[in-house]
Amino acid sequence: MPTLLEMAMDTMIRTFHRYSCKEGNRFELSKGELKLLLQRELTEFLSCREDPQLVDKIVQDLDANKDNEVDFNEFVITVAALTVACNDYFVEQLKKKGK
Amino acid sequence: MPTLLEMAMDTMIRTFHRYSCKEGNRFELSKGELKLLLQRELTEFLSCREDPQLVDKIVQDLDANKDNEVDFNEFVITVAALTVACNDYFVEQLKKKGK
Repeated sequence: MPTLLEMAMDTMIRTFHRYSCKEGNRFELSKGELKLLLQRELTEFLSCREDPQLVDKIVQDLDANKDNEVDFNEFVITVAALTVACNDYFVEQLKKKGK
Repeated sequence: MPTLLEMAMDTMIRTFHRYSCKEGNRFELSKGELKLLLQRELTEFLSCREDPQLVDKIVQDLDANKDNEVDFNEFVITVAALTVACNDYFVEQLKKKGK
């Protein structure tokens, strides 16, 4: 049986492919697919942020090679970066509490 | 309620801290903590690989700044890299099947 960490890795793969197969290259996310993925799959994360432009900023930043498609590598690095931001907040709260 | 992707991000944070608090700096993984984490939390992933040195190789590679501690950033980038390897395998299998 897979561990929680292995299931987390599996979730990143499945989530990417659930959206990347909607249109165009089925192994890459178009900007539209990416935007939909972020809006639907990061609802709680985005609702805590007060920047209504955040999704658009991520979409712009993510397409590093400017081909209007985002491959799995680019996607997973972004999830990693967002997770680092969440962890920084979590650690900051812990330190404030003096734990 | 968090989505599966948000739960995956949460799992990476919780898994890191469950091991990083065992000894030394509680916000970084020592090499011992990292090795334990990989062996216990990536059991299925590692059992498919035929390289008994893989955990040691990851531990060596991960400590990029050679301070014998692995911070959350280094950890999450490694999980991302392992997930890319899993995705490459998954895509290769799909393409072989002509799907």
